[in-house]
Amino acid sequence: MELLKQKIVNEGKAIGSDVIKVDMFLNHQIDVDLLNEIGKEFKKRFSSDKITKIVTIEASGIGIACIAAQYFGVPVVFAKKGANRNVGDNLYKADVFSFTKGTTTTIGISKDYLSPDDHVLIIDDFMANGKAVHGLINILNQAGATTEGIGIVIEKGFQPGGDSLRSLGLKVESLAIIKSIDDGNIIFG
Amino acid sequence: MELLKQKIVNEGKAIGSDVIKVDMFLNHQIDVDLLNEIGKEFKKRFSSDKITKIVTIEASGIGIACIAAQYFGVPVVFAKKGANRNVGDNLYKADVFSFTKGTTTTIGISKDYLSPDDHVLIIDDFMANGKAVHGLINILNQAGATTEGIGIVIEKGFQPGGDSLRSLGLKVESLAIIKSIDDGNIIFG
Repeated sequence: MELLKQKIVNEGKAIGSDVIKVDMFLNHQIDVDLLNEIGKEFKKRFSSDKITKIVTIEASGIGIACIAAQYFGVPVVFAKKGANRNVGDNLYKADVFSFTKGTTTTIGISKDYLSPDDHVLIIDDFMANGKAVHGLINILNQAGATTEGIGIVIEKGFQPGGDSLRSLGLKVESLAIIKSIDDGNIIFG
Repeated sequence: MELLKQKIVNEGKAIGSDVIKVDMFLNHQIDVDLLNEIGKEFKKRFSSDKITKIVTIEASGIGIACIAAQYFGVPVVFAKKGANRNVGDNLYKADVFSFTKGTTTTIGISKDYLSPDDHVLIIDDFMANGKAVHGLINILNQAGATTEGIGIVIEKGFQPGGDSLRSLGLKVESLAIIKSIDDGNIIFG
């Protein structure tokens, strides 16, 4: 997606050889016009009308998922991190290791909001090692729901998440794939 | 907002005398069509064209803020909870006590995304004791930004958050104010 790549190059910041900071438009401050273009692009790439729900994970996936959901006409469900007394025990759960934080978090989705009738598009802002997406797929499998595909805004192509999912036969669409970061320059794959 | 009140009555669950569960449409599963009506209503109630930014707090405020932002034509900035190595120390911070969880969390917004030129509409899903909103206002004050108003989807009118903000002379618009919960019945104020 050319507009997104330009935005990453013009406004993003490459830090070292593996961190891309895009919190000026994607995951802290949010450019909602850009999110609308992202939402339209996801709809183009996942044009199947079988999709019944968009699933994401808190926090930065939520805005992207909600804006995209307008083009699909379906509700969003987001996985929550950690425990919360208002959610209770009626949960499908999975453990997700975060390389960024060096910790394992339990994510959960209420059993009330996923069923074997659901055909789910998973959406997230970033994919590196893919642990969050694998956790979400684990949860969808527990619910008997079908994973129709995975839409990622920015994939770090030099990390194994994308390949690990594509090798399972899953449809993964990443709107910008970063092949490498070389001396502050971002090279797309 | 009549549509919202009907939704709360028809689909929400009152638990005891002080908990309203609306995670089937607002803060776990998200009805994006409803969010669009909520966004339009916020625009109607905060029609000033001075607003430059919508500020919210992760996680459940993000979807509401992003959908509403479409009607204001401004970006969203969400306060993050806890530390995150990709955000760093360049933060305005405030401590927020959560009565739900019984813990204090530090919330933060990067100094890059708030300035004295900003006129901010704060949006959140719920207000009870108002601690999260007070924390956001503290952050806006540190940045020298102007708090134009506070838009809340559901206010628990029997808890002190709303009054504590209105008594400061702030414009607070809550789309549904719950006066009390009586034997499973939700009474609006």
